[in-house]
Amino acid sequence: MRISELSRRSGVSIPTIKYYLRDGLLPAGRPTAANQAEYDEQHVHRLRLIRSLIGVRGLSVSATRDVLAAVDEQQGDVHLLLGLVLGALPVERSGRPPRRDGDAEPDDAGAAAGDVAEDVAALAAEMGWKTSPNPPAAQVVAETLETMRALGMDYDWRSLVPYAELADRAARLDLDQLRDAGDPLQQAERAVLLTVLLEPALLALRRLAQEHHSALRFGNG
Amino acid sequence: MRISELSRRSGVSIPTIKYYLRDGLLPAGRPTAANQAEYDEQHVHRLRLIRSLIGVRGLSVSATRDVLAAVDEQQGDVHLLLGLVLGALPVERSGRPPRRDGDAEPDDAGAAAGDVAEDVAALAAEMGWKTSPNPPAAQVVAETLETMRALGMDYDWRSLVPYAELADRAARLDLDQLRDAGDPLQQAERAVLLTVLLEPALLALRRLAQEHHSALRFGNG
Repeated sequence: MRISELSRRSGVSIPTIKYYLRDGLLPAGRPTAANQAEYDEQHVHRLRLIRSLIGVRGLSVSATRDVLAAVDEQQGDVHLLLGLVLGALPVERSGRPPRRDGDAEPDDAGAAAGDVAEDVAALAAEMGWKTSPNPPAAQVVAETLETMRALGMDYDWRSLVPYAELADRAARLDLDQLRDAGDPLQQAERAVLLTVLLEPALLALRRLAQEHHSALRFGNG
Repeated sequence: MRISELSRRSGVSIPTIKYYLRDGLLPAGRPTAANQAEYDEQHVHRLRLIRSLIGVRGLSVSATRDVLAAVDEQQGDVHLLLGLVLGALPVERSGRPPRRDGDAEPDDAGAAAGDVAEDVAALAAEMGWKTSPNPPAAQVVAETLETMRALGMDYDWRSLVPYAELADRAARLDLDQLRDAGDPLQQAERAVLLTVLLEPALLALRRLAQEHHSALRFGNG
């Protein structure tokens, strides 16, 4: 198909498609004439994936390029792909802004940093999780524990064990869904989608369940 | 304590404290002389809470003001507080950017929108969840289903039921932790913290578990 048809099918404008082509996110079409090329279903599919990563999940163009490169290169090795994706993708911290100039460290921040890293290691050991050294996700867990403590909550890795057990079951659900996913490219794409796109929905489901159970426990009606 | 001591204890700079005071996020201290006021432990605690919401979770000043107002006003009614917080807080979508000018709608986007709203209602009915009409979290679930389908995945509300069951258990864990939380103000604050601050850690735990189980299933070592 021509670029106009590709634009119609994917819902992405022609200037944006040209930008993705120049930027290497979308592979070039098959040249048919000077300044003309032919595109196929793979291009439609790839454009929808790019649109999801950038438009829905708000990834940067460069993070998206890393994810797509991982999908292309590692499609025969789902574990390696998942490892690359898990390592390359920014873990959600809600765009933690840079520290304001002049803000001092809280009194206990220095002391806490070492403790929480050990805490996360203890949690992983308790769960029997073997991961790469210092994955970005572990840093996020450590920061959360640090914040909880700075706020005076009595919170350590043991508090997170029941949540880690739920996360363990969620991860097994995720991987179950890769088994049925057809060819290696589809399996690789599905791994990315399940990891990245499902995250907001998982948090939203918890919010819905909180509202329901909160009404049951604390409601006056 | 004086403002300099408050700054040292909370780790927030004096200009930032003055900004929060002007903006109504932090209640005024007890006036002791012209341009001087005395602050107490509640101010330290409140500042750390503000710092967590803005600095760690990246909430806007106005969203933070809504959360703090809910904590102050509804401290006797945890359910009402949780409802306000769940309704007022932006649900994580990773800063979905505005649509690019000129991008057309994908062919199937219009048809999908109605279906997914019904899908989320079907999911809530299956789980026995009773929530307020059109909570923002339901919209996020609907958008996720819509995206999955636009990418050609065979994904409907039934695919989310196992995740919804895990979310149901997570919500009950969250609420269990409110029971031990001392006075109503602490209970209210804890509800906010558990909802908002724990979210990145829950996603991070899933990533750690994915890495572990991926190695078990697909790894070559």
